[in-house]
Amino acid sequence: MKHYFSITFLMLAALFTKGQQTDQQFIRSLFDQELTEGQSHELLRQLCKDVGNRLSGSEGADKAVAWSLETMKAMGFDTVYLQPIEVPVWVRGEKENIRLISDGKDISLHGFSLGGSVGTNGKIRADIVEVDGIESVQKMPDGALKGKIVFYNRPMDPRKINTFESYGGCVDQRYAGASEAAAKGAIGVVVRSMSLRNDQHPHTGSMGYQKDIPQIPAAAISTADADRLSEVLQADKKAQIEMEMDCYQLQDKPSYNVIAELRGSVFPNEIIAFGGHLDSWDKGEGAHDDGAGVIHSLEAMRLLQQSAYRPRYTLRLVFFMNEENGNRGGKTYASVSKSKGEIHVAAIESDRGGFSPRGFSIDGTDEQVKQIAGFKKLLEPYGLHAFEKGYGGVDINPIKFTENKVSDHTILLGFVPDSQRYFDFHHADTDVWENVNKRELELGSASMAAMIYLLDKYLGLDGDVKVPDVY
Amino acid sequence: MKHYFSITFLMLAALFTKGQQTDQQFIRSLFDQELTEGQSHELLRQLCKDVGNRLSGSEGADKAVAWSLETMKAMGFDTVYLQPIEVPVWVRGEKENIRLISDGKDISLHGFSLGGSVGTNGKIRADIVEVDGIESVQKMPDGALKGKIVFYNRPMDPRKINTFESYGGCVDQRYAGASEAAAKGAIGVVVRSMSLRNDQHPHTGSMGYQKDIPQIPAAAISTADADRLSEVLQADKKAQIEMEMDCYQLQDKPSYNVIAELRGSVFPNEIIAFGGHLDSWDKGEGAHDDGAGVIHSLEAMRLLQQSAYRPRYTLRLVFFMNEENGNRGGKTYASVSKSKGEIHVAAIESDRGGFSPRGFSIDGTDEQVKQIAGFKKLLEPYGLHAFEKGYGGVDINPIKFTENKVSDHTILLGFVPDSQRYFDFHHADTDVWENVNKRELELGSASMAAMIYLLDKYLGLDGDVKVPDVY
Repeated sequence: MKHYFSITFLMLAALFTKGQQTDQQFIRSLFDQELTEGQSHELLRQLCKDVGNRLSGSEGADKAVAWSLETMKAMGFDTVYLQPIEVPVWVRGEKENIRLISDGKDISLHGFSLGGSVGTNGKIRADIVEVDGIESVQKMPDGALKGKIVFYNRPMDPRKINTFESYGGCVDQRYAGASEAAAKGAIGVVVRSMSLRNDQHPHTGSMGYQKDIPQIPAAAISTADADRLSEVLQADKKAQIEMEMDCYQLQDKPSYNVIAELRGSVFPNEIIAFGGHLDSWDKGEGAHDDGAGVIHSLEAMRLLQQSAYRPRYTLRLVFFMNEENGNRGGKTYASVSKSKGEIHVAAIESDRGGFSPRGFSIDGTDEQVKQIAGFKKLLEPYGLHAFEKGYGGVDINPIKFTENKVSDHTILLGFVPDSQRYFDFHHADTDVWENVNKRELELGSASMAAMIYLLDKYLGLDGDVKVPDVY
Repeated sequence: MKHYFSITFLMLAALFTKGQQTDQQFIRSLFDQELTEGQSHELLRQLCKDVGNRLSGSEGADKAVAWSLETMKAMGFDTVYLQPIEVPVWVRGEKENIRLISDGKDISLHGFSLGGSVGTNGKIRADIVEVDGIESVQKMPDGALKGKIVFYNRPMDPRKINTFESYGGCVDQRYAGASEAAAKGAIGVVVRSMSLRNDQHPHTGSMGYQKDIPQIPAAAISTADADRLSEVLQADKKAQIEMEMDCYQLQDKPSYNVIAELRGSVFPNEIIAFGGHLDSWDKGEGAHDDGAGVIHSLEAMRLLQQSAYRPRYTLRLVFFMNEENGNRGGKTYASVSKSKGEIHVAAIESDRGGFSPRGFSIDGTDEQVKQIAGFKKLLEPYGLHAFEKGYGGVDINPIKFTENKVSDHTILLGFVPDSQRYFDFHHADTDVWENVNKRELELGSASMAAMIYLLDKYLGLDGDVKVPDVY
């Protein structure tokens, strides 16, 4: 019943080998291939179910590296190799209990230790001070929080249509809240989960400590429990939080970025890099964050190879390690590339989930943004309508923006799927394969392939994107 | 912690009353209201959980009418009333067993009776003929299917980006397959479910019989079982299907469209109608189809009222009954409107699910389509980028296109959310409240409100949409 798909593909492949294929036809064939014979969904299943979650330094991360290497090799790319890096190792440990003691009752809250937190070394228990962000804490006099546990409860602003903006508006509580509170004398912090849903799934994520400030334990609680806690505090000023967390940091250990290449036929030494991050948080399966992104990238490379496309530039697929709690993969990638004197003409990252495609955010000159938006006619039939100046991604950012930057001129692009559901799953135990829609994932893979193709074909060494007049 | 939302709303409301508010600000306030204090999710919960599914003529449909009337009255619109219609009554009955008998094994398939089908009057059992669509059957000689059960197995084409096109490409098997097969002698049909997922959830839906051809029973089976059945038939040409279905048709009975109005301040006798359909299939809860659409429409009206907006035209909210298996609501609505000599300047329908907004399809003149696309700058910040010529909706279509049409000149619009996941749930037992995302639903409600506002403000009695130059 499905023969006609393959026939169409063969017809398009035939056209292509005759050199008569237009960009429209080629992009159509990428989407057709992916939507009929695509492997995205099955590859993501393997990564989520056979490998599982994969926090840097964990056994899962080692399995993920092995799976990635094997999978890329089996696909027969020109080169497949590991790039050694050192990663931080944070261990959640066994206990992570956050309890609310109020009015004689002892209530277990839905809470996780935040990644990077120190443990509690037994139990700690203290009065609670609820605040609506780190600014409130910064304004307090020294010692104002002495002996307290601080409850950061600024919710994500639901009015932002781009939910990443809402996230950006409160993630400082999670990342920097502990040190800010400790500077005023606090002994622990609990943070409202970064989610727009009202539910009982806490969301973990990374936090860090400032130098020369006591390191105090930090945990996230679910949004529903955050609302409840806030209500309890209205009625009972004497309510207390008890925290018991076994988490700890070990020494750095070796890990890897996993890399594959299709050699450029015209500019073999000039690179278009693209990828996502292989590591994930240790709850759920890292399905959207960032299983979707590595699969988008892997599948994009496979689609282009399957289409017998001969790239002008070397196409380099990178699975970055350690985006979540250190960005060592991204930083090491950039510094190794710099030391080799490599030229990156473009880099594309997918790290915003496996949802229905919307467009690309472009970190380039105004002229480049305008030029890339010129592909809109080719890409809008696939739901890609937003081509706007914006951020590329954490992993590719060091190519352009660290002290070890490779180049000021590399165009960085971030794949932008619909953002409405992303923070329902992000860093929570619900970020599992079952919550990724097969078609939405496939459309992302084909979108990545299409953008790589267009940049490879029309981006010049001088950074100019020569979009033909017809578009 | 959420006080600032209300403050913003009050500030915007204050601006509005001073008459200083721009379109941008007003549309922003609609989205802000909905995303912070919106009732869409809770109203849909009531319709799905307190009412439940609501096939025309069922107890559920009666409850839905009562709930709608009460809910609209509680919102204090200017007028709320019932519009009497007659609806067909199809009853699923107790038994619906579809079994595969092959190689000595008797396997229960995941199957539902199709809506409108006759029952089997006991059990029927016959050899199977698999076909890839009604065209194949039409080409067969008379009597070619004598005594057989026909298995329609053309899948939805996954290559279409708009999944409604894929649906359109095979739904004729479900709707017309029985009579086509019966004309060639078949005694029953089973149809592959209209879904792009591979799973064990059958999708029901309406079917009809041609005059003067024997009426034979028709059922849908899940996509996974359709694949399995097809495989079995490769190996075992003697495999048989057994069908046992208790479904039957009763006489038509009275039901209602439920209608509410906000009276126009300039043109009280000229109407902008908008709505969705209140009836649903009897599996699941009709959450996306079309709970989302009626809630989008109800909430849009509430948002405009809450914003103290004084419409120029009369805004008429319509919950149509019987879209699924007769369109009696839509047809009666149009003919009553015609008999009253009403003028409809525009009608908007939401019947494509509660997913992230993409745009509107516009059934109007080329000039009107171009004019309405001129609102893009105002609406694109909310993800609405597609304003294309297309279909309005089943319920509003008779306003323009039946013999009782009200007018040739009414602009019909269909709200277009992302279509990727719609047919995962459509007419299946998975179409439940839990599968509707709160934010996606809310964005749809605010999108409807924004479009109603813009049409009310800029659409002239002559059908010209006078979009200000600034957009």
